[in-house]
Parts: sequence; structure tokens; C-alpha cells
Amino acid sequence: MARMMKAAVFVEANRIVLDEKPIPEVGPLDALIRITTTTICGTDVHILKGEYPVARGLTIGHEPVGVIERLGSAVEGYQEGQRVIAGAITPSGYSAACLCGCSSQDGPRTKHGFKPMGGWRFGNTIDGSQAEYLLVPDAMTNLAPIPDALSDEQVLMCPDIMSTGFSGAESGRVRIGDAVAVFAQGPIGLCATAGARLMGASLIIGVEAVPARMEIARKMGADHVVDFSKGDPVAEILRLTDGRGVDVAIEALGRQETFEAALRVLRPGGTLSSLGVYSTDLKIPLDAFTAGLGDHKIVTTLCPGGKERMRRLMDVIASGRLDARAMVTHRFKLDQIEAAYELFANQRDGVLKVAITP
Amino acid sequence: MARMMKAAVFVEANRIVLDEKPIPEVGPLDALIRITTTTICGTDVHILKGEYPVARGLTIGHEPVGVIERLGSAVEGYQEGQRVIAGAITPSGYSAACLCGCSSQDGPRTKHGFKPMGGWRFGNTIDGSQAEYLLVPDAMTNLAPIPDALSDEQVLMCPDIMSTGFSGAESGRVRIGDAVAVFAQGPIGLCATAGARLMGASLIIGVEAVPARMEIARKMGADHVVDFSKGDPVAEILRLTDGRGVDVAIEALGRQETFEAALRVLRPGGTLSSLGVYSTDLKIPLDAFTAGLGDHKIVTTLCPGGKERMRRLMDVIASGRLDARAMVTHRFKLDQIEAAYELFANQRDGVLKVAITP
Amino acid sequence: MARMMKAAVFVEANRIVLDEKPIPEVGPLDALIRITTTTICGTDVHILKGEYPVARGLTIGHEPVGVIERLGSAVEGYQEGQRVIAGAITPSGYSAACLCGCSSQDGPRTKHGFKPMGGWRFGNTIDGSQAEYLLVPDAMTNLAPIPDALSDEQVLMCPDIMSTGFSGAESGRVRIGDAVAVFAQGPIGLCATAGARLMGASLIIGVEAVPARMEIARKMGADHVVDFSKGDPVAEILRLTDGRGVDVAIEALGRQETFEAALRVLRPGGTLSSLGVYSTDLKIPLDAFTAGLGDHKIVTTLCPGGKERMRRLMDVIASGRLDARAMVTHRFKLDQIEAAYELFANQRDGVLKVAITP
Amino acid sequence: MARMMKAAVFVEANRIVLDEKPIPEVGPLDALIRITTTTICGTDVHILKGEYPVARGLTIGHEPVGVIERLGSAVEGYQEGQRVIAGAITPSGYSAACLCGCSSQDGPRTKHGFKPMGGWRFGNTIDGSQAEYLLVPDAMTNLAPIPDALSDEQVLMCPDIMSTGFSGAESGRVRIGDAVAVFAQGPIGLCATAGARLMGASLIIGVEAVPARMEIARKMGADHVVDFSKGDPVAEILRLTDGRGVDVAIEALGRQETFEAALRVLRPGGTLSSLGVYSTDLKIPLDAFTAGLGDHKIVTTLCPGGKERMRRLMDVIASGRLDARAMVTHRFKLDQIEAAYELFANQRDGVLKVAITP
Repeated sequence: MARMMKAAVFVEANRIVLDEKPIPEVGPLDALIRITTTTICGTDVHILKGEYPVARGLTIGHEPVGVIERLGSAVEGYQEGQRVIAGAITPSGYSAACLCGCSSQDGPRTKHGFKPMGGWRFGNTIDGSQAEYLLVPDAMTNLAPIPDALSDEQVLMCPDIMSTGFSGAESGRVRIGDAVAVFAQGPIGLCATAGARLMGASLIIGVEAVPARMEIARKMGADHVVDFSKGDPVAEILRLTDGRGVDVAIEALGRQETFEAALRVLRPGGTLSSLGVYSTDLKIPLDAFTAGLGDHKIVTTLCPGGKERMRRLMDVIASGRLDARAMVTHRFKLDQIEAAYELFANQRDGVLKVAITP
Repeated sequence: MARMMKAAVFVEANRIVLDEKPIPEVGPLDALIRITTTTICGTDVHILKGEYPVARGLTIGHEPVGVIERLGSAVEGYQEGQRVIAGAITPSGYSAACLCGCSSQDGPRTKHGFKPMGGWRFGNTIDGSQAEYLLVPDAMTNLAPIPDALSDEQVLMCPDIMSTGFSGAESGRVRIGDAVAVFAQGPIGLCATAGARLMGASLIIGVEAVPARMEIARKMGADHVVDFSKGDPVAEILRLTDGRGVDVAIEALGRQETFEAALRVLRPGGTLSSLGVYSTDLKIPLDAFTAGLGDHKIVTTLCPGGKERMRRLMDVIASGRLDARAMVTHRFKLDQIEAAYELFANQRDGVLKVAITP
Repeated sequence: MARMMKAAVFVEANRIVLDEKPIPEVGPLDALIRITTTTICGTDVHILKGEYPVARGLTIGHEPVGVIERLGSAVEGYQEGQRVIAGAITPSGYSAACLCGCSSQDGPRTKHGFKPMGGWRFGNTIDGSQAEYLLVPDAMTNLAPIPDALSDEQVLMCPDIMSTGFSGAESGRVRIGDAVAVFAQGPIGLCATAGARLMGASLIIGVEAVPARMEIARKMGADHVVDFSKGDPVAEILRLTDGRGVDVAIEALGRQETFEAALRVLRPGGTLSSLGVYSTDLKIPLDAFTAGLGDHKIVTTLCPGGKERMRRLMDVIASGRLDARAMVTHRFKLDQIEAAYELFANQRDGVLKVAITP
Repeated sequence: MARMMKAAVFVEANRIVLDEKPIPEVGPLDALIRITTTTICGTDVHILKGEYPVARGLTIGHEPVGVIERLGSAVEGYQEGQRVIAGAITPSGYSAACLCGCSSQDGPRTKHGFKPMGGWRFGNTIDGSQAEYLLVPDAMTNLAPIPDALSDEQVLMCPDIMSTGFSGAESGRVRIGDAVAVFAQGPIGLCATAGARLMGASLIIGVEAVPARMEIARKMGADHVVDFSKGDPVAEILRLTDGRGVDVAIEALGRQETFEAALRVLRPGGTLSSLGVYSTDLKIPLDAFTAGLGDHKIVTTLCPGGKERMRRLMDVIASGRLDARAMVTHRFKLDQIEAAYELFANQRDGVLKVAITP
């Protein structure tokens, strides 16, 4: 009889509960990870609220830190007992999407190898990380050993928050000397701010209204933080850039207002790098878009995954360039995950990210 | 007393008339060109209809072929009598926009060196080419000598149509083996089709409904031309790509329908390269945009200008890779320009482009 | 008892012989291919001559066309009986090298995931394709189904010649309107010429001295072919470019003379794209390199592999953009492979490429 | 009669002397700058020693900080009295080289618009900055106003040292999480180190043997500094990268040993970004180059110039990301410039850079 484990399971809208499930079987390309730390993401809250549909009974969560418990028969290059992380996105490595540099849109089992968001499997199309054990598919593509010197909490932001946030700056092709605006300073926006700083922007303007987030934004690299509750952020950003606008504007909220404001603060020829998960159609105002003649670029990025990405992000942490622990504001046991959801979903008590340990 | 010349002048909505104006004075950085051939662009029709505002009395037109009549005192490297073209866009060369690779958004006289569409001066902010003479600003940046072997009509499409159309493929970063869809096969779309062909796309699908344009699209490089009047082009393009979608979709009309269809035919991670001049706000449908998580890129490009761009385009013509004369369907004298506008604005008689000679 | 097959085996310098070997066992990630057509590469001749060391007893060849005979237990997405090719380079898909876009330097079993030339396995570190059967590792990353309409000979150049040759133009970032020189018009150089043409170069200059190759170079896209036996090709290329030099020079031979000439014909800021396999140290002359201040780029590329690359190349063939059959000048049975080597190694009888069928 | 000024003039090998010259006439596109601070570069020492030939009587120096004294008749957008810098390289803005993104190889007066190193004019082909006054050609392309908050010494490194050093990292395309080695930690190498840090490298290894330079290298961003006098730096860098090698190696000395070592520490597929000015032919060892099959890239960069570049660099200084004053170790009056050369050429007294004021 299968051994059982605890897992946070989606039951129906507004109900994620801690339940018992069998520990998964390990296929030839898989690895079974014993989770030592995980966390909750804004996307999980969308799932909780029923705004993003997943199968009833699915284990939620896509940010795993753990220890290799068992390796699939065809998996080489790892040892059981090794500490590892895997990205929120777990590309196969062998789909056409992966092989043309677009691994988050991975569709290994589709005819053409592409599937929208197909690389996002944990807590979306397969069981996720808010559990005692996690089955990692395509383990050789996805398992990244944790350097000994780093604690679980130090690398907990790598699988999603850092990878997504940094990609906002990377896809925006931030250059030395750029001016960058980052709309919203939640965990993703904070990492976008840090990413812009890491890539050499010389003026970074965060937009936020929650005082605690405004403060941490400065620590993560913002030169200015504009409080959008106290005036029009577009006007303020244009003032701070002396009328020129920014080279890159990063959207990290997923709303029409921020998308539109990001477009309006761009200099002609600038890039809007969008990270938000939208829930409505978007409008591109004709004037902000210069009728299509402004050499604007709008780029979107889904969290890059794969072990090499994770290796790089952990190297950034290990080098001391960024201390992502500052974002872990609360800690819970897996047994308390329902309380953790309650806190996180309601953004109570200044929560940024929670650490959950079995 | 100033010598006079004929020029097609905007008077008011729906009135462009041939008038007399003084031949312009030549400043130190300018060159005076005697126009030998020019043409009318779709943008000129927007001006004619009053949809795009320009100053009353402005000479229209931005596609000059001519002969150097007089050079400014600081201009070196050219001789009077030389046959030249200049791009529709005439960047200064010295603005911050130019120096950071964004020369169509040139703002040489603005505080920061950027101005939306600032590189477009002819027939927009200064007198244009539908006249006997044209003053070219920043001549050393903009005058491109015509190779002896090429006729006026052979290079007439370089200043705008080819430069803009090709840029649709270039900004879309078409690669060898890509599938590309081009929405609308007017002059710009035809050149986008030719550009995609030149860059190595292995499947090019044009979208059009006018039979003559469908036919020339095939000559310019389209493998298939989808007649949107006979069924949903999105479905047909997905069928032709076996469900995968295209790597790059080029919008060459400027309408919500084509913009949206271009987004819908993209594979995940694909690029929408937009050339159209829009006249309304645009909507990005949530589903077509995968809620912002599809790694989509939307890029817009304003016609690249400058003498080096013109040199490259003329080299393409000289090499025989493209015969742009196929697009010149009608010929008029400058004296007949009002009739030419009447024909072109109403798209009568299968007109693609007209050649106008003084 | 293992079933046996015929295979061309390296015995010692100057001896490749047809031998009998067991048909390989199929591991979980592998596929066994029944070879229907293969060919001999210049690299195989280096192996034959003992200039490039491989293990005694190794089956040679890295250009397979065949039919899936048996699939590994973990391989999904293919059917036995399907016609396929695999690239000369067979990346794993999951190494760090693959995941950072450098899949030809794949080191799946190395500590860091990189190994110089590690993606080249067939006929180098594992048995190759000059045999009745071939074991393809990491099959899901490497097997590319052949479109029904294409014959074996039509796709025979895809695994190496086209992939390598095109990459010379791709790594050189050839743009519309570029001038490109291609040094040597053997099979790789011919495909580099075709690649430069496909990417929009408006002036392509081949360098060659064998009349038959000069002729086919023109068919593949060269505007001029300079006969280096009749004068200094550097001087001639500078003459043809009116003193300016070329934007991209592609080296496709692997000699100091051609490497150096390629550098000397570059315009300042140009790119030397090197495809040759060198057998000596190279010298960069100080003057040709402008003492390091010429904004030169020297890029080298090892044949890109993987199924998505193969898919793109076959699409180019299917589209009719290139007819690679023109390069197949001779045909042999596998039983005659020693004669084929003799012909090919001595470049007799105008041979470009041979087709070998079991 | 022309007013006279003092200027450091090249007389013959090993003789640069302070002399009197007429203050230059201002042409229509020029600006006359009154120098307030300048410095001496390693290249000037090559000139002093007769290793790099310049015309007898030429004023040396290419790193100007000053005040606008007089503007040419066609120059707009500046005021007399404004504090400005100009880059060491002064592109015209209108040559073909400039217009295709290669402005350091500017050849405005050449037939094709390209000239090797043609953008370097100050102290090379026209009079330079070690004087009381400097004539800046193509002023609108080159004059960059200094923010009020910045002192002369704060921006003194922008014209050459920072622009060149940063370009080593930029041309190497350093990415977040890269490992980078920088060979030699003189002023250029130190700025390359700072540039790699600014672009997000997570492991930066400097190579140097002078203790004071090793110390400042750490301040500029090096994680490790390898003392090449105490062991093989190649072995040490491979050790520090756990056998993997670096993603980008920057050469900042101009010697065969460092060029070769930079190649040897690269991971397969890595980039050698070369900044050094070489004085001999270079050898590429066959093994280090993997016979041309290692996907190596070798890129060289001549100091980027132009006012937009200068603006970006001054913004980096103004943002506090880098304090370039740390490199100014000595100060001299222009009257003492011969003593300054003596100190600097002999690298006495721990000199990095000198500030020279009239």
C-alpha cells in the first residue's frame, strides 16, 4: 500500500485544505523531492479564489526547496540526499519550444512542441510543492543543487519570484545608464527592481503605496519610490526624468491602470516589459501608443525555469549581490497552511512572502 | 525676389492643391534637391482627409528622388548635379535618439533629444517632396547617391515603402525557417512580404482580398495568400501551420481586426510586428494574450531613415533581389497631382503606387 | 545472440573498413534508426587520415537519414516506422550548456554541463551513421520527422552541411543589404553562400578555384566568384566593394590563409564568422586587426543540432528556397563505402557530396 | 593676431613638451572648449614613446572636461559658459559607420563612411585636450553637459576610461549570474570590473600583480583578485569556477599572454572581450580555440563616444553606482605636464590616473 503524505489541495473556490495523498510513484525521468521549505504565490491566491481554474484535488504550489528522496531509473548526475530546488516552470528540455529558446511555452506532448504556458506544470497541471513530497518531471532539466553555504530561506525566492522579477529587467534589455520604472513593489516588482539594479540602470523608480513595500523597494535598489496614492505617478515619473520618460517600464501588477501608466512613462522607442497576470482585456490608448509609430516594444515574460536558470539565481544570492530573505516576513508549518493562505490572501500584517516548512 | 516653384499644398480637409511657393533658402546643413520623381503615400491621404493634422500651407510628400541643386555651406561629400534620394524620415544624426539607435524618434531640438515620430519631417513638420524642389535638412545624414544603373522608378519605393515594409520583418527578427503572416498586401504589406522572404522565412502567408494585390503578393514572396473575404483568416493560418501558429505576424493595415488577428495567429512566444498607423485605441484580448503569460512580443516600427538605410535598400534593388517597379501602377505629371490624389485616395483602377514627375 | 549489422569502422590511420557489429541495444531515452541514406563529411576524412583521433573500432559518420526501428521505453511522441533525420550534433536538451543556448558544447555528464564540442557524439564519441543501424541518444531532443513530400536525398544535407553552412551566415548576423564574402565553396561554403542569400545579403562574393564549384556557387546565390588562383582575393574583394570591405566574411576551409584573408576583407566593425576546422595555431596579423581597435568580431560556430533545427532546415527545403540535391554528385551502396571514401578523400571526379544507401 | 594658448605638443619620440599655439578658429559645426580638467592615457604614453605615430606638433590628449567658450554658427542646443565633456572618440553622427551603429569607426570624409579607428580624432588626427583650449568637431553630436552636482574629477574618467572599460562588459554581453575574468586592473581593467559588476555578473575575478591595484579592484567590484606573479592565473581561475571556466573574459592589457590566457579560461561558447591595444601579431592556440569548433566569440571594442554615451556614464556617476574619483591618484597643473608624463609613463608612486588643470 502506498505511503501517504500531507498536501495542500484545491477543493473548490475559496477552499484549499490540507489533505492526505499517496506519495507519488517515480517514473524513469522523474525525481521525488522531500520538501523542506516552500511558499505561497499570488497565483495560488487566484487559484484559491477560483479565478484561475485547476483540477479539483490538485496539490497547489510551485516554489520547491527540498532534498532528493528518489531518482528515476533514467536520471543521471544527481544523488539521493542532495539539497535541490526546481523552478516554478519545469521545461522538458526537448520540446520544439525549449529548443528554440522559449521553454516556458513548452509543449512536449503537443504535436508542435508549443503550448501556451505549457512549462508551468507544478500546481497547475500536475501536483505542486505545498506538500511533504513533490514529483519533479524531467528531473535532469530541472533539479538544481543548492550550494552548501545557502539556507533554504536564502534560495526560496529563486524558483519564481526572483526568476520572474529579474526577467522583467532582462526582457526589457536594461542597459547601463537606463532609467527604469517598476509599477508595484510586491514580491515580483521588488525583484524586478533588484534586477534593474543588477543590470546597471542608473535611475530606478518604484511605484507603490504601501509604506512597508516602499521602504523595502529602496533596499532592493529603487532610487525613488513614487506613492501613487498621493498623485499621478505618470506625471511624477516624467518630472523625475526631466520630461524624457524611462527607457524601460516594468509592469508587475496585472492591471489596466498600471499597464497604461507604464506605456505613458516610456520615452519614444522605449520598452514596456510586462510581468503581470491580467484578468481583463487590455486597452492600448492611441495617444500613448503614438498611433503605432512610436517604436514602442511591449514584451511579456513567463517565469524562466530550468536548472541553469536556478543555478544563476543561486549564484547571485551566494555572491551577496541580493539578500532575498528580506522578503520572507512570516513562517508557518505545513500544518498551518490554511492560516498562511488566510494571511497571505488578505495581505494582512505586512506580509510579503511566507516560508512554509513541513 | 525669390524664384518660385510648384508644390502640392494642404489647404484644408479634402483640399490639397497645386500652388506656387518660393524655392527655399539653403541653410548651412541643408541641401536643395530638384525633384525628378516622387509619389503619394497612404499617410498623405490621411492628411488630405484631415485625419492627420498638418499646418495649412504645408507642402505634402515624403518620398523624394531628385538631383542636388545646391548644397549648404557646411555640407561636404556631395556634388551638385548628383542624383540622390532621401528617406521619408530624416534623422539629424546628432540627437540622443539617433545616438541610441532610435533615429526615427529624433528630437534634435528637444531638451532630451527624443520626440515621438520626430524624425518624420517631410510633409509633416517641414515642406515635403510633392514639389519641384525640396529642402533636405541635415543633408550629410540623409542624402544617398543613386547608383548610375538604377532609374528613378527603381528607387522610388526606397524612401518609405521598402524601408517600412522591410522593417516589419527586421523588427520581427525573422529567422531562417520561420513562418510569417503578413496582414494586408498594400504597398507596405507587399514590402513586408518581400522582407520576410529576403530574411529567410520558409512559409509566408499574406492576407488580402483584392485579387490584383493577392497576385502581386505571390510575386513578392508569399507562399500562400489567404482571402479574408472568404473565411476567417485566423483559422486558415492555423490550418496552414498545422495548428502551430506563426513565428512572426506583421500588421500592415492599422486596424483593430488585423492587430487582433495578428496576435491570434502567433505561436506562444511569437512576435507581432506592427507597421500600421492606427486611428483608434487598440484592444488586446485577454485570451489571445494568454493573460500576459505567453512570452508575446509586440513591436512597432516607424520607417527607418538616413542615407545608410537608403544605400542598403538601393543595393537590394541593384542586386536584382527585388523589383520594386512592379508596384508603380500609374504615372502622373506634377501638374496632374490633384487627379493622382483622387485616384489614389479612392484606390481606383487597381492602383498600388503612382509615380509623379514634374 | 545479438543480431548483426554492417558498419564502416575506423581501424587505424588510413583504414576505415566495412565490418560487422551487433545492432545496438536501445536504452530508455534512445531510438534505434534503420539508416536509409547517409553520407561522408570532410571531418570523416580527417578521421580516416588519423588527423582527428577517435577510438579504434568506432563506427564513423554523423549525417543520418532513416526510419525509426525501435524506441526507448521513456521515449514519447514518435512511432516506429516514421522517417526521421537527426542532426550531426545530438544535444541532450538538459545540460547547462543546452539550457543556456550553447547546445553544441553540451556536457550532460560533466560536472558543469559543458564540454568542448560535447554535442558532437555520432562518429566521434559514440557509433555513427555509416552503418545499417544507428542508436540516437536523447531521442526526444533529436529525432525530426521528415515531411512526406521530401526524399532522402533532399534532406541529406540538413544534419550537417546546411546546418553548419547556414550558421556561418546566422552567427555573422547577416542583414538585409549586407556584403558578404565566403572563403571556399566546398559543401559547407556553398551552404554558407546559400545562407547569406537567404538572410538578405545584397552582395555575396564566393572565393574558390575549382571551376565546378565556382559554377555551383553562383547557383547557390553568389553574385561573384573570385578565383583565388588568378590573383589576390583580398584585393579583388576590396575592388568589388569599392574599397569598403564586406560586412561579414565567412571562413569555410580551416586554413591560416583563408582566416587571414577573411579578416583583411572586413570593413571596420565587421564580423569574421569562422566555420573551418583548423589544424594549426592561427595568427591574427596586427594590421588586419587594427591593433585590437577595429571593433572586429570573430565568431566560431559548431554545427547546430536538435530536432527543431532540423525541422527548420527541412522546411527551407520543402519551401523550395534551396535545392540541396545539387550537391549530391555521386551515389554508393554501403558495401562500396571504402570506394566512396577513396573518391571523396581525394576529391576526384568533381565530387561534392556522396549519397550512401544500405 | 590670434590669441595664444598653452598646449602639450608631440615633438618627437620621447618628447612631449608644453608649447604655445594659437587658440583655434571655430568652424560652423565646432565648439571651442576651455579645458578645466584633463588627464593622460596609456595611449598617450605610446605616442610619447614613438610607438604610435602622430604628426609632429600635434596637441596630445583625448579626455576633456571644460566650459563652452564659443559655439560654431550652425550649432544649436548649447550655451556658452556651459560645463561639458566630450568623449575620447568624437563621431560625426552622419557617416555610414555612425548610421550603422559603428560610430568609433567613423569615416565622414571617406568614400564609404568607414575608416579604421576614424572616430578617434583628439590627439590623434586633430589637436587634443592637454591644452588650455580644445576645438570639438561635430559639436552637436559630442558635447555632453555636466550635471551641476558633479565635479570635474567625478566625470574625468567618462570620456575614455569608463566608456572603454564598461564596453568590455557590454560587448561581452555579461548577463545576470555570469562569471567574468578581467585581465589586468589598470584604469581600463578596473572600469571593466566595475562594468561587469554593474551588469550583474555574480563572480568577477580580476588578474593583477600590483598590490594597490589589487586592492582597488576589490572596491570596483572584483570578488577575487588573482595575483599572476604567484602562480598560473588560468589554473587559478579554473579552480575558482570549479573547472567550468568563465562566461566572459575581458582583456585589458594588450599582450599575447593575457589574450591567450583570456581564451583559455573561457567555458565552451564563452566570449573573449578584448580592450587592449596590441603591439604584436596575436596567436590563437589551436587547443585553446578547440580547432575553431568551440563556439567562441572574440570581440574587440574601441571606446564608444558621442554625447548620449557620455550622458549615460555621467548618470551612473550621479546615481552613486560608481565613484570614479578613486582612480585619480595625482594632480598636476598643465604647466607641470612634462612631470606628469614622467610619473605616469613610468608608473611611479602607485599612479593610476592624474588630473591636470590649467
